[in-house]
Amino acid sequence: MTTTAIVNIGNLVTNDPELGEGPLGQIKNAAIVVEGDKVVWAGPSADVPATDEAHDAAGRAVIPGFVDSHSHLVFAGDRTEEFNARMSGRSYSAGGIRTTVAATRAASDEALEANLKHHLAEALRQGTTTFETKSGYGLTVRDEERALRIAKAHTDEVTYLGAHIVSPDLADDPAAYVDLVTGEMLDACAPHARWIDVFCEKGAFDGDQARAILTAGKAKGLLPRIHANQLSFGPGVQLAVELDAASADHCTHLTDADVDALASGDTVATLLPGAEFSTRAQWPDARRLLDAGVTVALSTDCNPGSSFTSSVPFCIALAVRDMGMTPDEALWAATAGGAQALRRTDIGRLSPGARADLAFLDAPSHVHLAYRPGVPLVSEVWRAGARVA
Amino acid sequence: MTTTAIVNIGNLVTNDPELGEGPLGQIKNAAIVVEGDKVVWAGPSADVPATDEAHDAAGRAVIPGFVDSHSHLVFAGDRTEEFNARMSGRSYSAGGIRTTVAATRAASDEALEANLKHHLAEALRQGTTTFETKSGYGLTVRDEERALRIAKAHTDEVTYLGAHIVSPDLADDPAAYVDLVTGEMLDACAPHARWIDVFCEKGAFDGDQARAILTAGKAKGLLPRIHANQLSFGPGVQLAVELDAASADHCTHLTDADVDALASGDTVATLLPGAEFSTRAQWPDARRLLDAGVTVALSTDCNPGSSFTSSVPFCIALAVRDMGMTPDEALWAATAGGAQALRRTDIGRLSPGARADLAFLDAPSHVHLAYRPGVPLVSEVWRAGARVA
Ligand SMILES: [Zn+2]
Ligand SMILES: [Zn+2]
Repeated sequence: MTTTAIVNIGNLVTNDPELGEGPLGQIKNAAIVVEGDKVVWAGPSADVPATDEAHDAAGRAVIPGFVDSHSHLVFAGDRTEEFNARMSGRSYSAGGIRTTVAATRAASDEALEANLKHHLAEALRQGTTTFETKSGYGLTVRDEERALRIAKAHTDEVTYLGAHIVSPDLADDPAAYVDLVTGEMLDACAPHARWIDVFCEKGAFDGDQARAILTAGKAKGLLPRIHANQLSFGPGVQLAVELDAASADHCTHLTDADVDALASGDTVATLLPGAEFSTRAQWPDARRLLDAGVTVALSTDCNPGSSFTSSVPFCIALAVRDMGMTPDEALWAATAGGAQALRRTDIGRLSPGARADLAFLDAPSHVHLAYRPGVPLVSEVWRAGARVA
Repeated sequence: MTTTAIVNIGNLVTNDPELGEGPLGQIKNAAIVVEGDKVVWAGPSADVPATDEAHDAAGRAVIPGFVDSHSHLVFAGDRTEEFNARMSGRSYSAGGIRTTVAATRAASDEALEANLKHHLAEALRQGTTTFETKSGYGLTVRDEERALRIAKAHTDEVTYLGAHIVSPDLADDPAAYVDLVTGEMLDACAPHARWIDVFCEKGAFDGDQARAILTAGKAKGLLPRIHANQLSFGPGVQLAVELDAASADHCTHLTDADVDALASGDTVATLLPGAEFSTRAQWPDARRLLDAGVTVALSTDCNPGSSFTSSVPFCIALAVRDMGMTPDEALWAATAGGAQALRRTDIGRLSPGARADLAFLDAPSHVHLAYRPGVPLVSEVWRAGARVA
């Protein structure tokens, strides 16, 4: 196989402390060697082995591609008017998520897939090389199954979220909807998904329902993750740890017991500041989690209702300004943290054996992602050893 | 001259209420005709006149190019470490702006110009078609003069800001520095600038010094603008109105008398939320100004110390989330508002006679600039009738 050396990297983040400085394993004046879809070497430029080809980074920083471990990209329609009304202080009498459910059900497979591809391409250009995405705007057996089928053609990280809200069709009988989600719908969806998720929140699913749903999914071979403690205190985070969920997502309202639970288990706390930004809500306290020893990931929650950003760099800037993360911690959370939230060891790092997913920054270091908020600094992207943007 | 019709515009913002709906003069399914560097027609696609050429907007939104009426782009060096320390809660014993002054003085003309061009190109790709930029990191006759000379090769909107801080060389004798700024330095700088500016703030220049500096500049034919009321209450805003300055910039700490003064005069309040974002400071209250009838502009304040963003869309998203502006008001402020802050009538609008400065958005409307924060939505840029990005 052809080997390619990427040389003249101003600052390389490997996320491997054995390869470089600090927790990010940083190397100045670095090079990296790619063979096929893998990294086979990373180190100082001066020590780079002979390769078939060379690619000049021209002094740019190189980081692992972002791992966006939480998005909702199988949907139709948008909610511009609802957003505009909320931000302008006007009341708006539409259905929130039900608007998206209706539009998604009404859309053709082709329209859903085109919209998904549009947003994946947009995210890729911004440096995201691994995407998790969910169902949850269908809420019928047919519509959930097709959302997952469409998603699976574009990513390995597909999550069954039939339990996003109680379907409007069964609004009067939530128990019957839980039966559907854990029964016929699960049977139809499990073959297309790796993960099962539930929105555990007042007005959605309570702790007992969430336990039943995740447990049923585990019995079908799905791995659990959970929307927990976004809008209020609740049982979601501790349930996540109890069930060894890969991630508890949002974590905005946490008791000390919640933080202790996270610190004691292997569940990652995935923070989604795009949601707090777009709904003017309280920021999650990343500092408190980090100081307690919790593993933190950062993701976009990209969805048309509460967080329509696909930009991981934007989330990093918010995490640094408003959530008490250092630029280094935020970068780690958006790469290695995301990988851990997906229980993946082949991504989120740039050490030998890792998949060659790289983002080149038009900047001397990753600190510029927070120092230069809003500026599209990602100038080149490689995924699995191939230049894709 | 060749006429070009841009057709199939999903939503066009003209900023001319006579051409379309509301204060933004919006037209759905619109077209625009460009001849040379000017707009000669704008209206519904169905009515577009015959032209020599056609360009398909493919349903995208088109807005006037952003007018960034406040930036500091003639500098050398960056302040990554200072930013990193501030955001990480570590103390940092460096010189703040003095670091940039030392680096700028030490840089060659070529290095300063290359850095300026890099940032102008970056801003242009993000939809900014008019840039104001300032001196202020030289603080000697030679270094201020050369900063303006370099800037003038790239924009008409050049501002002499010798009064950014008291030069470190004269730190013990501020009066002597004011004499220099209003004397020999002004004589050297006036031929290269359109504007004169002063940082009126505790620790920089007080009201009397600011009045003396702006008055001296006016006597040499420069037009006044002012950094006012950023870090604390002060005399800057009322002085701006007294001197008929085109703009009072920052306006973060305002008394009712300050707001009344702005409402009574022709001075625009230019808000710079990138600075508040990057220094974790209190947001300016745009809603209060708008409700009082003040004209508001939005700009980046792009500079390596306190606001290293070149992204007007990012500033729009902050203005909507945190400063009480509607998406429509924020878009107006970043286009027509910026034009008014530069006393320009040929830009910031897309009606006949205006310069053909356009940004195409990969979105159905400009609301997405706030609805999709951090996402680089500007997909094409025209300046003076030519496609430039
Ligand atoms: Zn979510
Ligand atoms: Zn400034």
